Amino acid sequence: MHLIFNKLNIHSVVHNFNSGPSILPKEVFEQASQSILNFNNSGLSILEIGHRTPLFQAVVDEAIATARELMQLDAEHEILFLHGGASTQFFQIPMNLLNENETAAYLDCGIWGTKAAKEAKVFGNVEIVASSKDKNYTYIPKDYVLPAGAKYFHCTSNNTVEGTQMHALPDTDIPLVADMSSDILSRVIDFNRYDLIYAGAQKNIGAAGVNLVIVKKDLLGKVSRKLPSMMDYRQHIEAGSLLNTPPVFAVYVCMLTLRWLKQQGGIPAIEKLNDEKAALLYDTLDSLPVFRPTVAKEDRSKMNVVFVMDNPDLEKEFLSLCKDNGMVGIKGYRTVGGFRASLYNALPLASVRALTGLMKDFANKKA
Amino acid sequence: MHLIFNKLNIHSVVHNFNSGPSILPKEVFEQASQSILNFNNSGLSILEIGHRTPLFQAVVDEAIATARELMQLDAEHEILFLHGGASTQFFQIPMNLLNENETAAYLDCGIWGTKAAKEAKVFGNVEIVASSKDKNYTYIPKDYVLPAGAKYFHCTSNNTVEGTQMHALPDTDIPLVADMSSDILSRVIDFNRYDLIYAGAQKNIGAAGVNLVIVKKDLLGKVSRKLPSMMDYRQHIEAGSLLNTPPVFAVYVCMLTLRWLKQQGGIPAIEKLNDEKAALLYDTLDSLPVFRPTVAKEDRSKMNVVFVMDNPDLEKEFLSLCKDNGMVGIKGYRTVGGFRASLYNALPLASVRALTGLMKDFANKKA
Repeated sequence: MHLIFNKLNIHSVVHNFNSGPSILPKEVFEQASQSILNFNNSGLSILEIGHRTPLFQAVVDEAIATARELMQLDAEHEILFLHGGASTQFFQIPMNLLNENETAAYLDCGIWGTKAAKEAKVFGNVEIVASSKDKNYTYIPKDYVLPAGAKYFHCTSNNTVEGTQMHALPDTDIPLVADMSSDILSRVIDFNRYDLIYAGAQKNIGAAGVNLVIVKKDLLGKVSRKLPSMMDYRQHIEAGSLLNTPPVFAVYVCMLTLRWLKQQGGIPAIEKLNDEKAALLYDTLDSLPVFRPTVAKEDRSKMNVVFVMDNPDLEKEFLSLCKDNGMVGIKGYRTVGGFRASLYNALPLASVRALTGLMKDFANKKA
Repeated sequence: MHLIFNKLNIHSVVHNFNSGPSILPKEVFEQASQSILNFNNSGLSILEIGHRTPLFQAVVDEAIATARELMQLDAEHEILFLHGGASTQFFQIPMNLLNENETAAYLDCGIWGTKAAKEAKVFGNVEIVASSKDKNYTYIPKDYVLPAGAKYFHCTSNNTVEGTQMHALPDTDIPLVADMSSDILSRVIDFNRYDLIYAGAQKNIGAAGVNLVIVKKDLLGKVSRKLPSMMDYRQHIEAGSLLNTPPVFAVYVCMLTLRWLKQQGGIPAIEKLNDEKAALLYDTLDSLPVFRPTVAKEDRSKMNVVFVMDNPDLEKEFLSLCKDNGMVGIKGYRTVGGFRASLYNALPLASVRALTGLMKDFANKKA
């Protein structure tokens, strides 16, 4: 939510429901903006400092330490900030973990999980253990059998496009790999339960152009293929995420966002706020028949709330109303249609109140 | 060069000779800082806009069009902004161009070229056609024979660490691949002569975390290995550098820097300034026996000027003097020692004057 001023100097409000890149805390924007002019009173912009200076080392150190503290990660889990997005991890993971004759198990519960499985097939065998494609990915498959001897089980903890979220994990000894791009740091879970977690930063962590990768060391070094240096997690671990020039500014924005989250009271505190935001929006949707949430109730995402209207003309009208009221990024993904409101950590409750208020007014008018 | 204010509100000057990330134009810092608070009067930060919006598409379009115009690239050459740094291209290039049983020719004239060749060996055969390792990479090898049938010839146009620069290319029909990370956009050359050019952005193009890759389309699609989507140049070309969420802010800073360069009069105008800066510094070095440039005269880099002093105590003293006078990033790379002054496009002549003034004073005092 931002106040902006138009030409007549009358302020209006912007509510950012973007699915990613998405809203970050106001304090982060302000600090980042200042640091581009003068970082830590060095007289230099954050964009022109050397990445092997104490100035930047302090940024990396704080980012890693804060991530470790917030997620309560044990010493077996290494934290990396790597170039690229989750799509980079789609292939870097099997490249590091899967030999050509081996099998990885993938859960297919959305567009991103499908893409992850496709990239894994470049390197080895992929078994899709379950899919919710039959119902346009509107639910999370639950009863599935993991193949014995699978090298790892890959799942997407939250499906950004379809608006579903995993609320339980299979009980298995197979190493767990999760794409948490759109719900990491949003709810208390046992992060140590996972062997590899990855997340594009541009939702709850920071700015686009960097990945957070958390990996258990004993998972690595077991494939026979030769790895390019930049693709080898072990080399990045050894270099402390400074194997080459990192995406300096993106890492800095992550550090600021992690620091902000800690100041808010960490994951438990933000989860409480996220629960409140999601409850308000879903309760409103459930109470207004003109709107229809698309997803199975028990699999609803608290980060991305997807809903449609059965009348396309009404959809257009409501979308236009949202636009007039400063609501940004509310249009649904093209494969789903309708609407999607993303409620990431930095989105204030006030923005959800503004949206639900608009929905109620609209429903009343159309009743 | 920036003015900063200390606690007594007395301003001092910072001269940034960093080798990369390095100085960018003041106008770029100011615009980028502003856009983090409110991008193009959208009421949104550049960090929170969707990458598939007209707002960001205009950024990508301008970045690509300006790069094309500045380098006068023909229609056969595609321009990409990709995640990562030059180190990412070290392996992405052979992955896309070199089959296992094929040979690529590499010129070994510095630490980065050596690394590039090492990564190529993961994918095929590498023939080092010449090396200047025998003299600690202080010159550019010239008389070498390219192997018949080589898939491409890889060279580093400017050696950031060692301070050498290629001023001529071999006369060959073998496709030319060049790492131009530290001298792209600094001098007029025939960019169309190259089949693939790559450059980490954090010197003359913009902020760290993005690569500029220029590639001739007919070079691609000729390897038999399966390519992960994110590594396949053809997919990035098809998607207009938006195959996945790009490093939005880094691309934006590139666009601003390219726009600035165009406003300065383009490459011919900046080359004139670069020539003036380099001449001033090299002339000063040549006139003061206490300083010793390390590199063969005909191979001197106009971007990275490397020099030493024969007395280690004097080196320490001069380094300390530089520090006291706001000179940042002047210390040489650990494999070379001494000093390195990087004179990228955005470094003002005044910073070089300040440095040469200091050198003259120092030399006079020690004479």
